[in-house]
Amino acid sequence: MAESWSFLDTFESNFRPLVVVELAKGTKKETIEWFTKRIVDKKANGGAQLLVKPLVTEKGEENIYLVGASHLRLLLGAETVGLVKECNDNSMRTFTYSSRKTFRDFADDNHNFLTMAECQYIIKHELENLRAKDEKMIPGYPQAKLYPGKSIVRRLLTSGILVQIFPLHDREELKKLRHSWYGRVKVGYQPLDEIRCYFGETIALYFGFLEYFTFALVPMAVIGIPYYVFAWEDYDKYVMFATFNLLWSTVILEVWKRICAIVTYRWGTLLMKRQFEEPRPGFHGVLGINPVTGREEPVYSSIKRQIRIYLVSLPFVCLCLYFSLYVMMIYFDLEQWALDYHEENESNFSSLMLFVPSIIYAVVIEIMNRIYRYAAEFLTSWGKKVVYSSSLNTNNKYFYLQFNFLNCFASLFYIAFVLFDMKLLRQSLATLLITSQILNQFAESLLPYWLQKRHKKRMKKRMSSLKTDTDLTLVEQINLEKEMGTYFGTFDDYLELFLQFGYVSLFSCVYPLAAVFAVLNNITEIYSDALKMCRVYKRPFAEPTANIGVWQLAFETMSVISVVTNCILIGMSPQVNALFPDSKMDLILTVALVEHLLLAIKFIMAFVIPDKPRDIQIKLAKLEFESLEALKQQVRSTAQSIKQRENSTDLLVHIEL
Amino acid sequence: MAESWSFLDTFESNFRPLVVVELAKGTKKETIEWFTKRIVDKKANGGAQLLVKPLVTEKGEENIYLVGASHLRLLLGAETVGLVKECNDNSMRTFTYSSRKTFRDFADDNHNFLTMAECQYIIKHELENLRAKDEKMIPGYPQAKLYPGKSIVRRLLTSGILVQIFPLHDREELKKLRHSWYGRVKVGYQPLDEIRCYFGETIALYFGFLEYFTFALVPMAVIGIPYYVFAWEDYDKYVMFATFNLLWSTVILEVWKRICAIVTYRWGTLLMKRQFEEPRPGFHGVLGINPVTGREEPVYSSIKRQIRIYLVSLPFVCLCLYFSLYVMMIYFDLEQWALDYHEENESNFSSLMLFVPSIIYAVVIEIMNRIYRYAAEFLTSWGKKVVYSSSLNTNNKYFYLQFNFLNCFASLFYIAFVLFDMKLLRQSLATLLITSQILNQFAESLLPYWLQKRHKKRMKKRMSSLKTDTDLTLVEQINLEKEMGTYFGTFDDYLELFLQFGYVSLFSCVYPLAAVFAVLNNITEIYSDALKMCRVYKRPFAEPTANIGVWQLAFETMSVISVVTNCILIGMSPQVNALFPDSKMDLILTVALVEHLLLAIKFIMAFVIPDKPRDIQIKLAKLEFESLEALKQQVRSTAQSIKQRENSTDLLVHIEL
Repeated sequence: MAESWSFLDTFESNFRPLVVVELAKGTKKETIEWFTKRIVDKKANGGAQLLVKPLVTEKGEENIYLVGASHLRLLLGAETVGLVKECNDNSMRTFTYSSRKTFRDFADDNHNFLTMAECQYIIKHELENLRAKDEKMIPGYPQAKLYPGKSIVRRLLTSGILVQIFPLHDREELKKLRHSWYGRVKVGYQPLDEIRCYFGETIALYFGFLEYFTFALVPMAVIGIPYYVFAWEDYDKYVMFATFNLLWSTVILEVWKRICAIVTYRWGTLLMKRQFEEPRPGFHGVLGINPVTGREEPVYSSIKRQIRIYLVSLPFVCLCLYFSLYVMMIYFDLEQWALDYHEENESNFSSLMLFVPSIIYAVVIEIMNRIYRYAAEFLTSWGKKVVYSSSLNTNNKYFYLQFNFLNCFASLFYIAFVLFDMKLLRQSLATLLITSQILNQFAESLLPYWLQKRHKKRMKKRMSSLKTDTDLTLVEQINLEKEMGTYFGTFDDYLELFLQFGYVSLFSCVYPLAAVFAVLNNITEIYSDALKMCRVYKRPFAEPTANIGVWQLAFETMSVISVVTNCILIGMSPQVNALFPDSKMDLILTVALVEHLLLAIKFIMAFVIPDKPRDIQIKLAKLEFESLEALKQQVRSTAQSIKQRENSTDLLVHIEL
Repeated sequence: MAESWSFLDTFESNFRPLVVVELAKGTKKETIEWFTKRIVDKKANGGAQLLVKPLVTEKGEENIYLVGASHLRLLLGAETVGLVKECNDNSMRTFTYSSRKTFRDFADDNHNFLTMAECQYIIKHELENLRAKDEKMIPGYPQAKLYPGKSIVRRLLTSGILVQIFPLHDREELKKLRHSWYGRVKVGYQPLDEIRCYFGETIALYFGFLEYFTFALVPMAVIGIPYYVFAWEDYDKYVMFATFNLLWSTVILEVWKRICAIVTYRWGTLLMKRQFEEPRPGFHGVLGINPVTGREEPVYSSIKRQIRIYLVSLPFVCLCLYFSLYVMMIYFDLEQWALDYHEENESNFSSLMLFVPSIIYAVVIEIMNRIYRYAAEFLTSWGKKVVYSSSLNTNNKYFYLQFNFLNCFASLFYIAFVLFDMKLLRQSLATLLITSQILNQFAESLLPYWLQKRHKKRMKKRMSSLKTDTDLTLVEQINLEKEMGTYFGTFDDYLELFLQFGYVSLFSCVYPLAAVFAVLNNITEIYSDALKMCRVYKRPFAEPTANIGVWQLAFETMSVISVVTNCILIGMSPQVNALFPDSKMDLILTVALVEHLLLAIKFIMAFVIPDKPRDIQIKLAKLEFESLEALKQQVRSTAQSIKQRENSTDLLVHIEL
């Protein structure tokens, strides 16, 4: 390994810009010099051994830098981040530079062996792992303190010197991707592998899940339609629908795990051991020894953080919840008022008016969610100058998730289980679902798209007034992209799906049509999200992932809760009540029995369906076996080499004699 | 590896007998010759390379053989079975012969590096993996067919030529173990590490669990006693006790996983990858390629087996269940009769008579369980001549478990939730629990112990009539041990604990004293089980294991069911009913709400408490990291050695020039 690094030359004629680093305007010269020197410096000197080129804009300003790397450097970086690639013998293996020849499609002159997204991920990783050595501060900025092991990029960001780091779009590739993704109207799967190559695994997996989830909802939607068309309101049909729904939701969540394993195995991320990666960039704290890898990296006391979270975040969340419940009560007042109005003067207008409170409430919920989000972000970044990447940390994300859940469903729970008003529930559910879907699509994709288009036009006008060449040069491209919004990860997109899943499953026996609306929304969602990724936001850095993480658990929890709610709803329906005219007790006992049975079936199903298909299981076991064998072999050969050394000294003695 | 085997010499002066092989009397000479030749033959010729010595008894019969192995052979075998041992640097590593010097306590002349149990496990493994090459049948027995890859020992067993294989007791060690285990009356922990060295991990883990479980029951027992002493029958106290019980049972099961991980890490079995072992001996079927290890080993179609199980076992189980319910009904008739009798002529005798039906029923249940067990064994071994080791396969074990569960608890469920007779429930529960505990202790340990003692006395008498020397020679020891009963694994012992856990937790709010009886029983159980292991049964082969397997799940399931039963019981109690005088509905809804809350808390607790302590997690992650690094290194060095070979040929060319 040590020798390989020495092959590297910091100079390479065909410099390909991959990542853009934007510094604040008027950054001091010495700081820039120090920072760029650290980026290009040799690994041995604590640098990142990357390539840097300043971008000279028309005004002669020099605050934007392009970062690239030689082909060899990227390959060595791929080994550092632990990329997993397919070998010539069809197995998936961790890439190492010395075994590069065994990998499929590898050739010394094939610069497409690593996708552009992977190259950018590597560069981001290397930049974030540029760590302070003995500097006490950032040169030129005495207030920006450094200590050994502190990530330089993080400190530059938090002290406002570094404005942003983002990967460049590849205009050719993007055009191709756009065309095959949403360019033509077609029925078929999304080009997940192409999305993965361009945007990385996390985003590709989101689109994969969105697609899978939409397909999985189709049976529910198909069964739900006749309920609306024929106005079926019989008890037995509702029970059948709800039962199907509950078992179906278990099956689809279990099957998703299997599909996810298949897809991420092919992408190599299932085998990627991210916990063994080189020092994680997000870490603060002083250097220590990682107990697993034995590497020197920043360690962080998590208890301090935990306490801070509970002292700051919990009261805040409680306050927000109180406010949210207060708004709900106002909504019920409004609802009552609309009902009274409708009863007093019955007309078409007044029956339309019945929907107005729900619509207003849906809008208010969306606004509250966003306000909460910004407030949480503010609290998290409190004391830091700049918000970097997804600023919500994991714990705040949980709070945010719970807040959203309660905000969206509190009123529905209240209507269903306190007011017992099934008609209002259905109306409120439908209005909330449809309004929130429309608002989301508008606020997340169409509005930013329109803003972006306007901005682009204005930019173009300004550009063309300076130059005659209308072709978008690199300078123009960067100037356009750096003004684009930042995509803060898939959290919000999953959250939207999660809430939708709640609308569909929690009250499915009251409003079977919810699945239909969900399917319709998701089909457009695929297109609007694709548009958002390709046109509205800056290209995000790729992020390898092997599953949808905490969302799997969140969806499963929702499906357990929905068993309870649906059983109660069915138990409350007048038709079921009519079956037990004499004794309410028998009714409740029957409902409880059915609920327990359904829960038991759910857990047994989740237990019985294996999380990974058999062939993937075998492949994983094979890798584990091979690594353990290799470890044995290593220990063995260490022992032998000691013996050989002894023998060879014997030999030397003989020769000397 | 190849060279190491050649070091081996089949002759060694200090032969130490480890395992006894008993052939049927009158086995043909050619068969014996062929079999012993295969045992001593070199590995390269498909033998086991072990040592064999015939045991010449006083009558000159030659049907018992002692199997041993040289020290070197055992070390190589330890590598084959993948034993994990502690290194000098305190880490646990898979033992390999070439790295032997790095292991703690290893010395070429230290024959105690491997425990006797490990040596016997290795020999068993090697014997069972003696596989047919091109033999079509066992020489001398044309009806005993062989095919390439068939385990010779298995075929010899199923065709009745081989009577049994068992490991020898070490009389010195056993005496020491007995002394420190149950020899003196003392309060303290069992010598688990010594038990593990003598009997292996599976049995040591059972005793560890038994001890842990007993300690864990103590708080329940302590809280339960005042209920009996002060005759507390208040609703609130019962609710408190039941709630404590439910949460406590979750905690103890989660904590056990952690303790289990700590203990088995120290023993090395947590790291042992048993799924990667050389061909598993229990496998039938022809040779194929294992997809994980790439080794040639017998493969087996599991679908055929599944179908057989469901076609044969299911109807049988249903029949047994029907019969068991029928017996239950007779019990209720008896119970009614006893009650009538007591009411007619009230006397001390008649009130004692009230307990008689329960006692009879408890005895009948035990008998039925045993009959079912033998019937299941008969069905499993149907068509095979000899029952070998634990003859219940995994699926039959599940059926047996369920049958036992229903057999024991059906009547209690019936009394509780159909008859609603809390007094009868308490009485029945107490009688069943105590009777079954007494019966079990008697049938499992004391009776066999007494039989064994009688047999030993008779043997000694016969021996002493032949010789004057009263010291137990090897011949006598073997003659004694071969007549001892076979210990069929820990299944029955765990089952007993499982049923006890059911008695304690399912109806804990009705009969808080159950925990007291359980604790008392378990204390004697430890002693009687220890006696059973040391005195009554043949020494069992050690079996490495990392956890208590399916029993963890079984206990957890029981604790979930007990939440439901306890909530219903509390809901049915007259005190709770008195709290809701107006509406039964409110009562049921409250109970259902509380039950759901408890279940939710249980699941969250199980989710939040990590299964392994942090330091064990780190150690496991470290091992995984190191193996993956070794795999990378291996691939790298393979690539380099190719390069070196190219270079060295260059060098040769230079020299030739």
